[in-house]
Amino acid sequence: MVKDKTLVKVNEDLARERKKCNFKVEELTNFLDGGVQYTTSRRTLENDILSHKELFDSIPEEYLSHKEKYENAIRKTVLYYRLMQKYQNYKEGSTILDETRANYRNLVSFAVFKDYPPLMLHNGMFIPAIAGQGTPEQQKHWLKRAKNMEILGTYAQTELGHGTFIRGLETTAEYDPSTEEFVLHSPTLTSYKWWPGGLAHTVNYCVVMAQLYIRGRHHGMQPFLVQLRDEETHIPLPGVKLGEIGAKLGLSTVNNGFLAFEHHRIPRDRMLMKNAQVLKDGTFVAGPSSKLAYGTMIYVRVIIVNGMANLMAKAATIAVRYSAVRRQSQIKPSEPECQILDYVTQQHKLLICIATSLAFSTCARWLWDVYTGVMGQMESGNMDHLPELHALACSLKVVSTMDVSGLVERCRLACGGHGFMHSSNLPYTYGLATAACTYEGENTVLLLQTARSLVKAWQKGSKGKPLSPTEAYLMDKSPVPKWENTLDGIIAGFRRVSAGKVQDCVSKIDKLVKMGTSYEDAWNQTSVRLVAASEAHSRAVILATFRAEVSRAAAALSPPLARVLHQLVHLYTVYWALERVGDLLLYTSIAERDVQELQQQYEDLLQKIRPNTVGLVDAFDLRDEILNSTLGAYDGRVYERLMEEALKSPLNAEPVNQSFHKYLKPFMQGKL
Amino acid sequence: MVKDKTLVKVNEDLARERKKCNFKVEELTNFLDGGVQYTTSRRTLENDILSHKELFDSIPEEYLSHKEKYENAIRKTVLYYRLMQKYQNYKEGSTILDETRANYRNLVSFAVFKDYPPLMLHNGMFIPAIAGQGTPEQQKHWLKRAKNMEILGTYAQTELGHGTFIRGLETTAEYDPSTEEFVLHSPTLTSYKWWPGGLAHTVNYCVVMAQLYIRGRHHGMQPFLVQLRDEETHIPLPGVKLGEIGAKLGLSTVNNGFLAFEHHRIPRDRMLMKNAQVLKDGTFVAGPSSKLAYGTMIYVRVIIVNGMANLMAKAATIAVRYSAVRRQSQIKPSEPECQILDYVTQQHKLLICIATSLAFSTCARWLWDVYTGVMGQMESGNMDHLPELHALACSLKVVSTMDVSGLVERCRLACGGHGFMHSSNLPYTYGLATAACTYEGENTVLLLQTARSLVKAWQKGSKGKPLSPTEAYLMDKSPVPKWENTLDGIIAGFRRVSAGKVQDCVSKIDKLVKMGTSYEDAWNQTSVRLVAASEAHSRAVILATFRAEVSRAAAALSPPLARVLHQLVHLYTVYWALERVGDLLLYTSIAERDVQELQQQYEDLLQKIRPNTVGLVDAFDLRDEILNSTLGAYDGRVYERLMEEALKSPLNAEPVNQSFHKYLKPFMQGKL
Repeated sequence: MVKDKTLVKVNEDLARERKKCNFKVEELTNFLDGGVQYTTSRRTLENDILSHKELFDSIPEEYLSHKEKYENAIRKTVLYYRLMQKYQNYKEGSTILDETRANYRNLVSFAVFKDYPPLMLHNGMFIPAIAGQGTPEQQKHWLKRAKNMEILGTYAQTELGHGTFIRGLETTAEYDPSTEEFVLHSPTLTSYKWWPGGLAHTVNYCVVMAQLYIRGRHHGMQPFLVQLRDEETHIPLPGVKLGEIGAKLGLSTVNNGFLAFEHHRIPRDRMLMKNAQVLKDGTFVAGPSSKLAYGTMIYVRVIIVNGMANLMAKAATIAVRYSAVRRQSQIKPSEPECQILDYVTQQHKLLICIATSLAFSTCARWLWDVYTGVMGQMESGNMDHLPELHALACSLKVVSTMDVSGLVERCRLACGGHGFMHSSNLPYTYGLATAACTYEGENTVLLLQTARSLVKAWQKGSKGKPLSPTEAYLMDKSPVPKWENTLDGIIAGFRRVSAGKVQDCVSKIDKLVKMGTSYEDAWNQTSVRLVAASEAHSRAVILATFRAEVSRAAAALSPPLARVLHQLVHLYTVYWALERVGDLLLYTSIAERDVQELQQQYEDLLQKIRPNTVGLVDAFDLRDEILNSTLGAYDGRVYERLMEEALKSPLNAEPVNQSFHKYLKPFMQGKL
Repeated sequence: MVKDKTLVKVNEDLARERKKCNFKVEELTNFLDGGVQYTTSRRTLENDILSHKELFDSIPEEYLSHKEKYENAIRKTVLYYRLMQKYQNYKEGSTILDETRANYRNLVSFAVFKDYPPLMLHNGMFIPAIAGQGTPEQQKHWLKRAKNMEILGTYAQTELGHGTFIRGLETTAEYDPSTEEFVLHSPTLTSYKWWPGGLAHTVNYCVVMAQLYIRGRHHGMQPFLVQLRDEETHIPLPGVKLGEIGAKLGLSTVNNGFLAFEHHRIPRDRMLMKNAQVLKDGTFVAGPSSKLAYGTMIYVRVIIVNGMANLMAKAATIAVRYSAVRRQSQIKPSEPECQILDYVTQQHKLLICIATSLAFSTCARWLWDVYTGVMGQMESGNMDHLPELHALACSLKVVSTMDVSGLVERCRLACGGHGFMHSSNLPYTYGLATAACTYEGENTVLLLQTARSLVKAWQKGSKGKPLSPTEAYLMDKSPVPKWENTLDGIIAGFRRVSAGKVQDCVSKIDKLVKMGTSYEDAWNQTSVRLVAASEAHSRAVILATFRAEVSRAAAALSPPLARVLHQLVHLYTVYWALERVGDLLLYTSIAERDVQELQQQYEDLLQKIRPNTVGLVDAFDLRDEILNSTLGAYDGRVYERLMEEALKSPLNAEPVNQSFHKYLKPFMQGKL
């Protein structure tokens, strides 16, 4: 790639920025990829896939109709998945986990689909669900077909009337021992499955979550592998009602669908029975632990944290490069118009975005290791660390989606009007980020779940029982220490805030309960504070993890790179201290002069990082095709690209649109 | 409208909510409209316009291609504007100002266009520009043609390379005395006019801002009325290059365009010469004051503040009604699933939205009165209050667009996955709100302009000179008073914060200058704090205005309504105190226990307002056609509407999409 770049004429301002960079960009790229070998394999894949010009659009998809967008996405999907198959080495011994890790920074699909492709959940959830919940026999048969893409599938859980509250889901699966079949049924309009990607017109199979009933007795939610469409004709099977849920803010090519069953019968062996089982005679055999099902859920959340780091990198690259190219207004009347990146307000908007991408990619990598560790323990029956992992995954999912969607919008707004153009690719990026605030556990609900675990830990700790490593600080009973404006001081401060807030919540709940309020109502009345406590805890975890992981890694890095990474950790920490200064003032001994000093530290850091800003986003190593943006390309030809993209609008094909003759002219002439 | 509503079957939860409401909804509607007569005239207009079914779409526009969207918008535009003409009484004596005020809550266009119509700037800026900057002769000729819509126009200022920095605009108008013509020219790619609504394919005239040169001498930016297209054929005139700028995050039917001139000649009398003039021989006569041009700019910003109040009302209505209908999870395990509006976290998200709409509609009305007052003074040559008005309009524009776009997104996210559907109409609403953060003065730039005025005021005050009423508090040298947890106490606290931040900024700038930094660099290095100071000032103004105006109005209202309005003012004030608690802790004598008490006050207010929540949004009196939302309709048929809208997707017209046969089947069979 570096070779290509020397061939293009680069905007002079960008070229100068690159000369100012004082660390090795390639070294940071390797660090982000997790090693030189990952950078190399990622680039090999990109070079291959991106050489297939038939994967790209001549007319950008935002000009197509909704139906055309879908059809165009399917055209590209089959090409793309066929090409990608050789990189998905489903060979013996290679697990889905190995491959996920290797693909952490593979964003090549964004070069083909500005949104996600309609088959995204085939690899993302359908295959993992069979792998995680199918018996060895089921896996043998179905995984093979799914991996070969002889069948295409998705995963259906959410319904029109229920998302987060899984127990409220209404789809039923009643076992009929006489025919050894399950009867799937959607009893109400609200029980329609609603949202699964690819469900509408693309897939022909689906893992469906339904309430299992045997002889009238309820046995919880269970997963069923259901054929939805005829493999030859693609016509929905009798008793299966399918359709599309309609246009959305984003994800326009995902083909989200609805699904209802009318007493639809499937063979007994289509229930995924790795955990719970239904025997031929209708005997229900419970699984070893209902908690095993948490595995997939946590896995998906880890993937989301990593995905947010990538979306943030994409938005930051676009906004930073644009800000280096764009010149507007003057700092001094005697000087020419300056690069907008020289405005400290612009640095304030954008540098934190770079730090945030790094913070979440670091946390995602760390969480991945925790996750694989806990999964390993669980295989041998040890569930001790599952609750902590679950709480961590919830926290990180929430904070990463919340922060990144907010900061992607900040990047967009930092590009002024041009950020509002679809050709900037920032609106699409926002659509992808903000969707994640809702799916896979709505953020407020997840924060309250984490709060529940914090309150439990508090109660446990108060009884002198030991707490898990990430929650142990809650019981720190030492007096509030003298404030220190250091990274450790700030991180300790955040822990104090979190512990203080949890304690306040417990006190308020206790007080209300003593006054006669039920615990549940007291919980609800305290929930605004519980959410805040939960967020504070998450921030403490993220700050500590980012700092620790970067420090640990820095020993193996060159001093210039280690320095710039430390600056970013520092910037990130001080930024959040200033954002949450009210909490620090309430719960720690920080004083006004400390705050002033932090503000000054922050501004000094902006100045220190400024020369490396373009180098930092270059290190994300996102190819122009992946950025897919008029504003963010490597060469900085911003205005030329904006004009070239504008001219692709089909409206520009004719000087006069037909609607003039039909409507405007008679209107202006008073004849309408 | 009330009559219609009794006929439909209303969701039981919504019906029960309405019974709980303890104030008269109609009284609040009248208050919001500014009097019974305005409610009546608004409803008359709505009943008339909305009875024309040909104004509506059978297929929602989000399913159309970009080109079809435009053509469909033009189809509706001519019908809509013809119908609306009878309500635009451009009669002698009626000014644009009168009509604007009367149309403050007229949102009927949202029933026809989910975004804005392509002719929006014809009335919004083209006509006001001619009225504000044309000579009486020019007005006589052109205003008549424009008002009759014999010609259609827009306003072109922003260029591809310059938005906020007006002095940097590159389009030139050179006067040629030999032919008594101006020669309009676009010397570079970046000088292309870029963004004006309707410019691409719709209008045939335009007010163009260009740098005036006479015999090589520059005479600033001047407005020119330019014909762009032939009135008969609509073909762009020779020397005029027009096109569309492409697809965007929102405003998809606005038909934003680009425009370039190639030495295009126009007669001398096409310069709008109410202020500056160019005589036949090329003599330049400066206008009485260049400040007069500020009028239109301020006018537009006042309109924006009001528009934000309306968008907020729309989003709040949708999210509140949905939250009353949606039942999810249980507060107590023994009870049925509860309305999500009963979760205190949901009340925390939504009640502030209602209060925010009211705060900005109140501020907009107040600002309108200030504006018309100052304009009156200016007619008689008194410019004294213009800078204060300008700063106020900037502040309110910034804070209203920033808060409302954030809160519209909060409403959307509060509706979970369904808020992500276009059929909720929340994504469109966000597009409209967030665009306003950038247009008509980018928010950060405007905050820095306000900061400049605050620093000036500080310097003036420090020399003992009197300050304008809204800035006088900056010079309050009294010792920090004992904190009081009252509205007055909090508002006084916000003033202390603002004054303290301005003082800090001045000190930092002084310090840097003393250390040898230039004033301009010192300003830039302080700009993150200047923006914060400016926002703090704006908050103080808004809180004080909201409180004062509601108190003033309350005397004429029934006690129940006065009570609920006071509760909303209280909620709004305490909400912002808690949001900015760090600032209050730094700059006032507020103590930890005060903060705890404020938190409790806030939670108590949520509980008090809860029974009136649906009544409050009903009082916004936004008809279902205007809400245009599956989630927000008066009858609460949420799930039925979601399904009905989904079935309108053209993809749902066929059980199997053609792409299956062409792509998916051969792919699954390994033949691709």
